[in-house]
Amino acid sequence: MQKAGLSLACGARAWRSVRKASSGMARQDPLANKVALVTASTDGIGFAIARRLARDGAHVVVSSRKQHNVDRAVAALQGEGLSVTGTVCHVGKAEDRERLVATAVNLHGGIDILISNAAVNPFFGNLMDITEEMWDKILDINVKATALMTKAVVPEMEKRGYRQGGSVVIVASIGAYFPFPGLGPYNVSKTALLGLTKNLARELDQRNIRVNCLAPGLIKTSFSKVLWMDKAREESIKKVMQIRRMGKPDDCAGIVSFLCSEDASYITGETVVVGGGTPSRL
Amino acid sequence: MQKAGLSLACGARAWRSVRKASSGMARQDPLANKVALVTASTDGIGFAIARRLARDGAHVVVSSRKQHNVDRAVAALQGEGLSVTGTVCHVGKAEDRERLVATAVNLHGGIDILISNAAVNPFFGNLMDITEEMWDKILDINVKATALMTKAVVPEMEKRGYRQGGSVVIVASIGAYFPFPGLGPYNVSKTALLGLTKNLARELDQRNIRVNCLAPGLIKTSFSKVLWMDKAREESIKKVMQIRRMGKPDDCAGIVSFLCSEDASYITGETVVVGGGTPSRL
Amino acid sequence: MQKAGLSLACGARAWRSVRKASSGMARQDPLANKVALVTASTDGIGFAIARRLARDGAHVVVSSRKQHNVDRAVAALQGEGLSVTGTVCHVGKAEDRERLVATAVNLHGGIDILISNAAVNPFFGNLMDITEEMWDKILDINVKATALMTKAVVPEMEKRGYRQGGSVVIVASIGAYFPFPGLGPYNVSKTALLGLTKNLARELDQRNIRVNCLAPGLIKTSFSKVLWMDKAREESIKKVMQIRRMGKPDDCAGIVSFLCSEDASYITGETVVVGGGTPSRL
Amino acid sequence: MQKAGLSLACGARAWRSVRKASSGMARQDPLANKVALVTASTDGIGFAIARRLARDGAHVVVSSRKQHNVDRAVAALQGEGLSVTGTVCHVGKAEDRERLVATAVNLHGGIDILISNAAVNPFFGNLMDITEEMWDKILDINVKATALMTKAVVPEMEKRGYRQGGSVVIVASIGAYFPFPGLGPYNVSKTALLGLTKNLARELDQRNIRVNCLAPGLIKTSFSKVLWMDKAREESIKKVMQIRRMGKPDDCAGIVSFLCSEDASYITGETVVVGGGTPSRL
Repeated sequence: MQKAGLSLACGARAWRSVRKASSGMARQDPLANKVALVTASTDGIGFAIARRLARDGAHVVVSSRKQHNVDRAVAALQGEGLSVTGTVCHVGKAEDRERLVATAVNLHGGIDILISNAAVNPFFGNLMDITEEMWDKILDINVKATALMTKAVVPEMEKRGYRQGGSVVIVASIGAYFPFPGLGPYNVSKTALLGLTKNLARELDQRNIRVNCLAPGLIKTSFSKVLWMDKAREESIKKVMQIRRMGKPDDCAGIVSFLCSEDASYITGETVVVGGGTPSRL
Repeated sequence: MQKAGLSLACGARAWRSVRKASSGMARQDPLANKVALVTASTDGIGFAIARRLARDGAHVVVSSRKQHNVDRAVAALQGEGLSVTGTVCHVGKAEDRERLVATAVNLHGGIDILISNAAVNPFFGNLMDITEEMWDKILDINVKATALMTKAVVPEMEKRGYRQGGSVVIVASIGAYFPFPGLGPYNVSKTALLGLTKNLARELDQRNIRVNCLAPGLIKTSFSKVLWMDKAREESIKKVMQIRRMGKPDDCAGIVSFLCSEDASYITGETVVVGGGTPSRL
Repeated sequence: MQKAGLSLACGARAWRSVRKASSGMARQDPLANKVALVTASTDGIGFAIARRLARDGAHVVVSSRKQHNVDRAVAALQGEGLSVTGTVCHVGKAEDRERLVATAVNLHGGIDILISNAAVNPFFGNLMDITEEMWDKILDINVKATALMTKAVVPEMEKRGYRQGGSVVIVASIGAYFPFPGLGPYNVSKTALLGLTKNLARELDQRNIRVNCLAPGLIKTSFSKVLWMDKAREESIKKVMQIRRMGKPDDCAGIVSFLCSEDASYITGETVVVGGGTPSRL
Repeated sequence: MQKAGLSLACGARAWRSVRKASSGMARQDPLANKVALVTASTDGIGFAIARRLARDGAHVVVSSRKQHNVDRAVAALQGEGLSVTGTVCHVGKAEDRERLVATAVNLHGGIDILISNAAVNPFFGNLMDITEEMWDKILDINVKATALMTKAVVPEMEKRGYRQGGSVVIVASIGAYFPFPGLGPYNVSKTALLGLTKNLARELDQRNIRVNCLAPGLIKTSFSKVLWMDKAREESIKKVMQIRRMGKPDDCAGIVSFLCSEDASYITGETVVVGGGTPSRL
């Protein structure tokens, strides 16, 4: 299974070193030689982030629950000349989390960056209708697995040493601040991530591992489709959210790469909203 | 078990009606004739809230996991001439939640108020040391059970009719905003409750059920003992929290009664911090 | 002028003592014997607060910029048997602030409570059209005068001694968190008050003077008329604010009285939103 | 005066075009050909931002109140081969604001970016001791002038056309959220800027002008010296702020450049805290 989960990464380092040779500045490859894990990254926001990290110089390991999605994403990104490999990972399973970590370590010798994007597809419906099983699933994957994925990665970041440090970015949602209508448990799980970010940041500060959070607004992905699946609903949610346009996955990628870069070395414990002007907090 | 879980409430209505006869104003008994459930209310903050609601005129059903604690609390409060009964309730168990609801309905004909205070005792330790089982326990009781307890109560509130409405107060913690050091999962679960409050408030608004939240600061209870168990730790946490004194359970009771009263009829979805000046949010 | 600014208060103490005699509990008159100044209190939210404080037992001094408004408010409240006097006060003028303080001290021997509600009528228009003079006026009255009014009152609160302490409530607005459309400078001045509350609370903590803040949502007053002056605009703003109904001034009064009472003695530096469920902050 | 206020910019475009020729990617010069005004930029955080914007490809106009500071900053930055000119500007004076705008327009044909960093040096002392004049000064410069500077620049941004848009970054402070002890009016003025950011963002959204805000934590500058002037005070403030190290001006520069870049095109109305893990908001 582990073998099957791995897509070929032959030549990844070579590709980057060619590109890097033509550049003299750190800024041009702000993540050069960094190794990044991105969960739930074969589509949507996660995929856009993975591509951006790789474009900015990182060796990226993508993952999601299905092998064919991993294969497709890896093929697409390798096709762009990026240093990307992948493995299947269901973040709710301890052995999958461990295999993801092992994959990166075996291939690249360590881990510097974790982007924790995995979340169950939100159920559309009232909180009063949500069953105990739905709550379990959503808290397990969106909250607990995020914490445990970080826990699995931190020892590898520590091995890099204090100076090099590490960077974690957790993907929450504007729904953490303002409930998306009809997505109660999803919203609540995302609010929890704001707190998880703060707590992890505080605890990992002394190891020079920074932990930040991205709160995307209404981004057009298959994941958020429940909110914009027909034109009427899209217009309605845009009005509620007071935005002119829905965001694109790429709108979320730059800030994540930035937060992982040296430029953000004094930023930790913070959440950045990428919402196109939708009401957020002061 | 259900029978055993019930303490005698004989005469509770009679007691109140005597007190009420001497008073002409609604303000003197702001919760007169309201029926209130309070979870985890045989000690500490929950107990102080239960007593206050009863003093303000409500019929209160206290509960916690152990029969002898329920008995002691009921005896103490009945001894003060208050309309208080009790039943054992482990909020993580569906049958216990249902029995608690049934107790109130059988005894008092319905439910107007839910104070959701139940939480597992916080584990002291690093997030990096927390096991999957600890996460399960804390998210189950602090978050999921709070949602499900509300779900169990809402149908009874609806039966009261739109005009009468209902009121839920969820007990979170200042740790929701600012991590108590060493209490990561507890803090995260409390952050989730801020979101749960918002989401429930929005969904239940059209039924005239208000949902608010209390975020106590550092309150001196057996529950928070891990933070002030010796003098050195108490002084240290007071300095971190920038407070002159620790709070008392009673410091939390007045605001909860207020939030359940007619005076708060335009307040819903809000969290009030009772923190003695500890840094909180704008 | 000072004389003219004073309305007759003859008998105020007598009236209260009669009412109090029939009551044995502190809760029935939570502000008994307290002396309260309320600025901008001859109409709307300020008037509702003044009435409530007086009903809860306080001696209240109302004020606003025009003598005939003061006279009318005092007459109305005295007509209800409340201990209320009044004086003209333009909070932007140092001599007016001093006279207001002197009035309360001369009449009642000190000051325990300040409700700072004064604000200029908001200009409707774009930030890009606001002149320097408009900014001056709005920052002067809404921010600076609030700080200076507090400064004028604090020495009188200190004279009461540490044990008795004092309580300040500043009236901000939900516009502090989420811009009311078209009311930019007003919104900004109210955001500043959230910070002023925090700063005053911290500084005055050691004198046992608590400082809290009220952030009303969309309340139906002549002041907010610009937002609901015709039916279409009212419906539009209600949709933007996601509320079922506009609030009434009385919806704001109970919480202010509560914040000034002994029950709130562990609450300082906090803002409470009274918004009927309109989006606010976590 | 205008002439005197201008430092020579000869060759600025030429320098950049040489550097740009060797680069094929937008990311290497994310602000290529943008024109940026930075107020209070001859020292500290403003200077670090100006340098970074220029390094990222922008033509930058620096400014502050004193000619010799402008000259020194321009000389230093031109010495690094950057496209930087400067002019004296006291942001509290309308004619100075207009001259600053005119300088950029005359030299570079328009304005794309405004970094509003000007603020009066904070007074150290209690709020209860602050005079009316001190309040005037601090609100005038920190709040009103920020709004008016933006107002002066927006017409030039609009001339660029909707597609090109514009970007404003306002420099607030962590003191906006959590009072720096002893710096009350400063803190309050910075809280106001959080609201100003929101209001400007909303109003300018339809013109495709984004407005964001930077809230630096404890950064080691001459400006913040009052907080760390001796070792004991530095250690004390670090403990209060729960940080391991004070920040450097450069720690603030990257995020500002990022917020002005195409990568941040879906980010508006947001404040980013650069605080090294100091408690901030969820």
